[in-house]
Amino acid sequence: MRFGAIEAGGTKIVCGIGNAEGKIEERISIATEEPRQTIQKVAEFFNNKNVEAIGVGSFGPINLDRGSPAYGSITTTPKPGWSNYPILAVLKQEFNVPFGWDTDVNAAAYGESMWGAAKGLDSCIYITIGTGIGMGIYMEGKSVHGLVHPEGGHILIRRHSEDEFAGACPYHQDCLEGLASGPAIEKRWGLKGIELPNSHPAWEMEAYYIGQAVANAVLMLSPKKVILGGGVMQQKHLFPMIQREVQSNLKGYVHSEHLLEKIDQYIVKPGLGDNAGLCGALALGIQAYESRQDQ
Amino acid sequence: MRFGAIEAGGTKIVCGIGNAEGKIEERISIATEEPRQTIQKVAEFFNNKNVEAIGVGSFGPINLDRGSPAYGSITTTPKPGWSNYPILAVLKQEFNVPFGWDTDVNAAAYGESMWGAAKGLDSCIYITIGTGIGMGIYMEGKSVHGLVHPEGGHILIRRHSEDEFAGACPYHQDCLEGLASGPAIEKRWGLKGIELPNSHPAWEMEAYYIGQAVANAVLMLSPKKVILGGGVMQQKHLFPMIQREVQSNLKGYVHSEHLLEKIDQYIVKPGLGDNAGLCGALALGIQAYESRQDQ
Repeated sequence: MRFGAIEAGGTKIVCGIGNAEGKIEERISIATEEPRQTIQKVAEFFNNKNVEAIGVGSFGPINLDRGSPAYGSITTTPKPGWSNYPILAVLKQEFNVPFGWDTDVNAAAYGESMWGAAKGLDSCIYITIGTGIGMGIYMEGKSVHGLVHPEGGHILIRRHSEDEFAGACPYHQDCLEGLASGPAIEKRWGLKGIELPNSHPAWEMEAYYIGQAVANAVLMLSPKKVILGGGVMQQKHLFPMIQREVQSNLKGYVHSEHLLEKIDQYIVKPGLGDNAGLCGALALGIQAYESRQDQ
Repeated sequence: MRFGAIEAGGTKIVCGIGNAEGKIEERISIATEEPRQTIQKVAEFFNNKNVEAIGVGSFGPINLDRGSPAYGSITTTPKPGWSNYPILAVLKQEFNVPFGWDTDVNAAAYGESMWGAAKGLDSCIYITIGTGIGMGIYMEGKSVHGLVHPEGGHILIRRHSEDEFAGACPYHQDCLEGLASGPAIEKRWGLKGIELPNSHPAWEMEAYYIGQAVANAVLMLSPKKVILGGGVMQQKHLFPMIQREVQSNLKGYVHSEHLLEKIDQYIVKPGLGDNAGLCGALALGIQAYESRQDQ
């Protein structure tokens, strides 16, 4: 049995075909341009692939309210043409199969719980730190949606005492994303993260911010695993720095060996690597297929 | 059908008998003293009451891991005699009925979702602001436990620019609880909250802290209702101040009429009033009874 997966990002849309065990058998990457042409290319990829269902993990914010006429659309985005674009409805016109639909980061958290770093666990959070910062939440065996959907990349955090950068978030200026995203690093230091040596003070500041966000997420949600992905987290030396910051923030208050002794196995990179988002979308497709069977 | 409810706090333990509709028919309050004697009084209250199940919402941190030998105990507390006290096991020896068990704030959030301000909703958060600050999380129709259980009262927040108080949390000094609990207000200003006039700058600072915590919880979790209880929130003038702070922090980023237009119905006091905790414990008892029926 084969399922379709769409990881829709603001820069590229990755499409894949996979099986029920989370193995991606085929994939392509399509540049995210004007929506109509872009989705046409997506549709061409899935044509005659005979998938049982398709899962979509999308950049956002998106509409996840099944009772709303705008369900399945991207709501607000600076990306030209994509605001209010009904991506799910357009895809459903092309393919008469069940569709799964969630944020890219919720999909990644779900995929990691199925086949990745949180396999077998009923909760995890997935934080991507790249062009933006997003937080996917999987708790008590369910992806969290609520009123809209989690937007934990924009929480307010304490400023580092030596940080004079105003912040890069167009909405909140110096929220988490405004202070710790890839573009924030580049604007603050005048160099991309990849150009900064491991000993550069940028990384201590970055770990301070991410460590604070993770500590707050651990306190608020008590996830069983914290998975950090995205372009900035390609800097592997950040992991031990962030782990130390989290312990320093929590001060032993949360009594769990996972935080006190095994934090290197608690705050981890995606088990699915660069496939976390695509496998997450695949998992959404499988879930949509299984829900149909239940009905 | 009658169910038992125990709201176990560090100062008093409230016991009640209620029905399946959330109505409390009888209640008593017992001072929290040495555990053995205290629990004996609790047991005397329930003796011959013929309840079908008993729910316990407890101060903590507590052990919620069903696989642990310490399941059902209070783990660490400065309260003499209560550290590692197996409260649930002791109660089970007295009464051969199903027991529900959760944190006091998770119980309150659950009770509010059953019969209170979040009735009919599948998610809400309950924040109590009193001697301590606690956060109960109910998401996608389930109380959130995870690794340990949520401890959102201890998140790190930004300091108010005019706040020179060091903070009152014995673990983190100036976390949310350290800056915004009842004792923090009293230590900072030299007067109890109840003695400070509505125009006192203490309240603007308090709204700044609570508004920041609520904004971060809304971003991270996207709850369908935010319920604020506890002694400090008896100051009703705080509600509009906190609502304004949350809007000011979010800056319109979360597109929902509940935040943009109807925030006075989104951030609210407990619908169950002073019974939120006890009704929550009752709801846990009913849930334990119903789970038994499933088995």
